[in-house]
Amino acid sequence: MTERLYIYDTTLRDGQQTQGVQFSLTEKQQIATALDALGVDYIEGGWPGANPTDSDFFDAAPKTRATFTAFGMTKRAGYSAENDDVLAGVMNAGTSAVCLVGKSHDFHVTTALGITLDENVENISATMAYMVKEGREALYDAEHFFDGYKANPDYALTCVKAAYDAGARWVVLCDTNGGTLPHEVYEITKAVIAAGIPGDHLGIHTHDDTGNAVACSLAAIDAGARQVQGTLNGLGERCGNANLVTLIPILLTKEPYASAYELGVNKDALAGLTRMSRQLDDILNRVPNKSSPFVGASAFAHKAGLHASAILKDPTTYEHIPPETVGNTRIVPMSNQAGQSNLRARLADAGIEVEKGDPRLGDILNRVKEREDQGYAYDGAQASFELVARDVLGQLPQFFEVKRYKVTVERRKNKRNQMISLSEAIVVVKIGDDKKLSVSESMDASGTDRGPVNALAKALAKDLGPYQAIIEDMQLVDFKVRITQGGTEAQTRVIIDSEDGAGHRWSTVGVSPNIVDASFEALLDAIIWKLLRDGAQAA
Amino acid sequence: MTERLYIYDTTLRDGQQTQGVQFSLTEKQQIATALDALGVDYIEGGWPGANPTDSDFFDAAPKTRATFTAFGMTKRAGYSAENDDVLAGVMNAGTSAVCLVGKSHDFHVTTALGITLDENVENISATMAYMVKEGREALYDAEHFFDGYKANPDYALTCVKAAYDAGARWVVLCDTNGGTLPHEVYEITKAVIAAGIPGDHLGIHTHDDTGNAVACSLAAIDAGARQVQGTLNGLGERCGNANLVTLIPILLTKEPYASAYELGVNKDALAGLTRMSRQLDDILNRVPNKSSPFVGASAFAHKAGLHASAILKDPTTYEHIPPETVGNTRIVPMSNQAGQSNLRARLADAGIEVEKGDPRLGDILNRVKEREDQGYAYDGAQASFELVARDVLGQLPQFFEVKRYKVTVERRKNKRNQMISLSEAIVVVKIGDDKKLSVSESMDASGTDRGPVNALAKALAKDLGPYQAIIEDMQLVDFKVRITQGGTEAQTRVIIDSEDGAGHRWSTVGVSPNIVDASFEALLDAIIWKLLRDGAQAA
Repeated sequence: MTERLYIYDTTLRDGQQTQGVQFSLTEKQQIATALDALGVDYIEGGWPGANPTDSDFFDAAPKTRATFTAFGMTKRAGYSAENDDVLAGVMNAGTSAVCLVGKSHDFHVTTALGITLDENVENISATMAYMVKEGREALYDAEHFFDGYKANPDYALTCVKAAYDAGARWVVLCDTNGGTLPHEVYEITKAVIAAGIPGDHLGIHTHDDTGNAVACSLAAIDAGARQVQGTLNGLGERCGNANLVTLIPILLTKEPYASAYELGVNKDALAGLTRMSRQLDDILNRVPNKSSPFVGASAFAHKAGLHASAILKDPTTYEHIPPETVGNTRIVPMSNQAGQSNLRARLADAGIEVEKGDPRLGDILNRVKEREDQGYAYDGAQASFELVARDVLGQLPQFFEVKRYKVTVERRKNKRNQMISLSEAIVVVKIGDDKKLSVSESMDASGTDRGPVNALAKALAKDLGPYQAIIEDMQLVDFKVRITQGGTEAQTRVIIDSEDGAGHRWSTVGVSPNIVDASFEALLDAIIWKLLRDGAQAA
Repeated sequence: MTERLYIYDTTLRDGQQTQGVQFSLTEKQQIATALDALGVDYIEGGWPGANPTDSDFFDAAPKTRATFTAFGMTKRAGYSAENDDVLAGVMNAGTSAVCLVGKSHDFHVTTALGITLDENVENISATMAYMVKEGREALYDAEHFFDGYKANPDYALTCVKAAYDAGARWVVLCDTNGGTLPHEVYEITKAVIAAGIPGDHLGIHTHDDTGNAVACSLAAIDAGARQVQGTLNGLGERCGNANLVTLIPILLTKEPYASAYELGVNKDALAGLTRMSRQLDDILNRVPNKSSPFVGASAFAHKAGLHASAILKDPTTYEHIPPETVGNTRIVPMSNQAGQSNLRARLADAGIEVEKGDPRLGDILNRVKEREDQGYAYDGAQASFELVARDVLGQLPQFFEVKRYKVTVERRKNKRNQMISLSEAIVVVKIGDDKKLSVSESMDASGTDRGPVNALAKALAKDLGPYQAIIEDMQLVDFKVRITQGGTEAQTRVIIDSEDGAGHRWSTVGVSPNIVDASFEALLDAIIWKLLRDGAQAA
């Protein structure tokens, strides 16, 4: 006997409060479409009237199965609900559901609004009644509810009961400042139910200021709430909102939730979660957090030697769920702590089978160790690791040879007396008997010089003859530099993340005292790995 | 009546399992010193014998008030504790406390170890008894305890009771795979106490695979455990360990914890938490997570218009604690009093006195903000900050002008058919009416090419005419590169640490899409700051 639990997404509204995030109309449409495919129940689109992009978005919102919701605030004192122009802006978006924030903490009523406690209750009642009269599904977003309850439980309960009694479908208990801990959320939610609002009319909205947004959401569900609000990747003001990308897999795979509740998200959608999470980061041009629960690139990475060897016997030894459940993948990285079993697993991931006990495993480990001593790091550079292994195994074709390169960076005044810089690179490669000399500068579309590494990447990828079709959709998506101690000299280590047209990513590493040279090495590895993966034949 | 709650840090051991993290000896020493200043009770230094860096570290460990702890595993079946060489490696580190991991989940005993359930219990008892006999404080790290308890509660309890009965000071309940939720941690910890191990002998060790590591730690404390384990910034395998940087402020500022427990961390140390967290990221060259609870750069940033205006009336309206409690700062998207007083303090540090209320304070804040939007970061680059401030204040002499520069990196075969690289730089500066053209290559004493930044630094410092004596003892000691988001384009941010003959260090920053250009800007700032500090007069 399962009960329905509703997921309410506020990525497009509260998620937009993230520092540095500002969605365009197109981005809002892309995200709404992805949310609908995931299977959330409500998509809060923004605050129409308050924000021009939000208004445009409601006009051009995609058709969704999920209930589209407009956000706003309860009517102001001194206006009727019918005559409040801020509320009218929200209603005009024409969504079937409307979520309106209002006060429930006495201090905020008197300090922030400057009205009487009774006036605030009247605003809530009248607004909710108006929504019902207008045929909308009404949600009352009780701002600062938990802090309000702690300060004045009677008044906080009066506010939310006013909303419920006036016909609100949902009363959403908000921990606006994010300072409430899970045990308090549990007890206070229980108290609200005891005061007469049934759990299947209660929502929970938390923030991550103490790192407990997910736990607080679960605590409210444990207490009886049946709607949970959050955002994709935990976007949101300050430390962010409850992360739905973490909550959804918990609710679908962990007990007692998995057996007790039915969600709009199914197992197939769950298997697309990792992809969706990274897609959102892509849209926002953010670097995905490797350690994110469930979907992070490291979430199923086993570095400790003892763990890695047990994983080979049985993955359940060190994994709480199979990574494929959420569309993620297992990683057994190399490091100086790892042994041969770890190595075999990692080779198998790359499609390289080497028998247990094969002496070449020792050769590969030695080569890796030697290079790590020089400053290389293969933990975060699986593609370069693979090339090292294939080289030791004699499975690395020589696709081409770089004969020489030269890169120039010049900074001087242009004709208009402005300081500008210009980077140029010349790369000479030999493919079979064919020698190719390519030159490139590094201007981007806006005429900005992107520097020597960019110029080298462009020149190198400009004409690789028979391989050109394979590398044409590659692009450099991230570039990390660190100074390490290799031997007795400082070395520069460069890690480059590349991506192809299908969204596959791979990472390569280069090391040299010369940063340009280290970058070039990582670039070369990236291209060679792509050629290998796509089955290119040596010319 | 407060009870003592112990903080056990495992950044140097479990934290090192983070993908991409490999501490050097110096880094371990720096981190241990910072942990001791914070006031944690235990510092787990690593696994001596298993890892060469860890062994070196124990030999050269800093003197700490905190109890230094070596990590290892319980003796193996078939060996006595006295004769197990892996255990001997751990004991040889000579720490007063030793934490040894062992099994408590029947499945792991039979699958991973391949021994009988009784043999495992005997290994635990004998090992703990041996520790006690040797006069060490013994900790039993019960791996997979929660999963083990769920599978076979009797056996799991038998294991931990064997450790306790044999004299273990602490039994640490580990959620090794990170899949256990807070309500389960609470109930199972209660059951362990009911089975006879007092809470003040129980520790909790959680992982963040469901985003609940902090909540699970709190649940165990609620149930009675009195030692909590975690890492700085939540470093650790997969999704990381419980984040002490989140837990410590909760325990010190939130009820019931703040009133109920006494910690080794005091309010002064708490006020240094933000700085310490960022310092660790600096050491590891990781980008600090802006949305981290308490210490993230966005943790007290108020973007929503309604929030920002209420914050100005009273910060408690939208803040769960005052940011200064943890050494963080409020960000409100407009200039504010707090910003100005911070700024005055920072200027005073640089010997620049500006009166309270001086409108130029606002000008400096605006300039800094503008540059931060472009990707600059002045937190770790006080010297560059000072130059910006002096420029706004009209206190920055023009010592010289760089007219242009050109740097070339070439890689080709030498006469002996070896691939070598060579970097050369030409810099043209104007000092007064004097134009100076300097050229330098970047070979070091051993004939190795150190790259374009080195060549530029050498050329720039080769002949600065009247200033030459002042800059002659300068050298570049560290160089950090990060890709950041400035405006809509990826920018490269370079931070350079310079040092003079007397051992003074200063840091400068440069930003550009072109890494060479960003480096050059930071180099220039480094020289100008040195000239200023040493009282050079503009030519």
